[in-house]
Amino acid sequence: MIFYDCSTAPNPRRARLFIAEKGLDIDTREISIAKGEQLRPDFLAVNPRATLPVLVTDEGDVLTENLGIAAYLEAKYPEPPLMGRTPSEKGAVLMWNSIVEQQGGLPIAEALRNSNPHMKDRAIPGPVDFVQIPELAERGMARVGLFWDLLEKRLAETPYVAASTFSLADITTFVFVEFARVIRARIPEENDATLAWYERVKARPSASL
Amino acid sequence: MIFYDCSTAPNPRRARLFIAEKGLDIDTREISIAKGEQLRPDFLAVNPRATLPVLVTDEGDVLTENLGIAAYLEAKYPEPPLMGRTPSEKGAVLMWNSIVEQQGGLPIAEALRNSNPHMKDRAIPGPVDFVQIPELAERGMARVGLFWDLLEKRLAETPYVAASTFSLADITTFVFVEFARVIRARIPEENDATLAWYERVKARPSASL
Repeated sequence: MIFYDCSTAPNPRRARLFIAEKGLDIDTREISIAKGEQLRPDFLAVNPRATLPVLVTDEGDVLTENLGIAAYLEAKYPEPPLMGRTPSEKGAVLMWNSIVEQQGGLPIAEALRNSNPHMKDRAIPGPVDFVQIPELAERGMARVGLFWDLLEKRLAETPYVAASTFSLADITTFVFVEFARVIRARIPEENDATLAWYERVKARPSASL
Repeated sequence: MIFYDCSTAPNPRRARLFIAEKGLDIDTREISIAKGEQLRPDFLAVNPRATLPVLVTDEGDVLTENLGIAAYLEAKYPEPPLMGRTPSEKGAVLMWNSIVEQQGGLPIAEALRNSNPHMKDRAIPGPVDFVQIPELAERGMARVGLFWDLLEKRLAETPYVAASTFSLADITTFVFVEFARVIRARIPEENDATLAWYERVKARPSASL
């Protein structure tokens, strides 16, 4: 297998942590988004949609999108399970993963991509340029505030985001929470349950990757 | 089980088609978004995030988000499989489901919610109001054009979106393609592969739901 990674971007980091939590050692190639390497012909030949991460499997599949990579690896290497064991757990993991992507990951990306001067005309990942929309950056910041509330409410109920054990939903949440630093957003200091969860996840070996 | 549906909205329709394709008959309650019923206390007691669809399971789980509901039902009722049989298929289904959500569903929703006078201050689903951003509606329309290209390229390669057989990714794509009518967007008439796929999916009994 070959894993195409980018050390500075949140979505490849999600796949990198998933691979580490599975205990897998996969041949990894770094693609620098800062240098625009994802738009070069040799990478576009791998993924014409110009996004990272990508996993090329031994069967020859070219898997993009975190959920595509996670679903493949979970089925191929079931232990330890990161997407739930029972139907209820499997439902909860993908439910919370979706909620965190939409209510956390998307607003953070909107806030960054529509305000950062280095991302001018790069408001959306992929091969086509889109101009920044400043109002969307502002809306993103407002929504990140709501995301902290949502997360605190959830983590006051359960030790991990989707269930009583660590899962894909924690990886997604952890990566976005750390990435929020780029827009100067942090877990509010009064959000005790979220901060306690953050320390639990941060203590895992994968968290340093 | 209880399924909370809304007959006019695309996301509940995705779950409704998934349930039908599984051959399940689940007690269904209609929540009218047009009447704002998703914001009323009795529904907020079920889902405080005020979104549809919701599946309340016999185990007492309250599952929101299409992927949460699909993952639960796929694990509980494996036949017929709608999320792939092999690791490669499972990866491809969630990969293409994600691509279609991001490149198709999101731009269509952005185009509608940021332009329709009936959705003033309802630019994002959920309990909190957000004002419309007209530039985001324009960008959504432009991106829907790119989505038709992406879909045509993919469906020239495979008979169904994720694989050689019908899956969750086809349900997601079909529902968004039909919903695009609300922004007067249709499959371009020269996109033969997409139109042939559309007729194949449209012929299924679930497509009339």
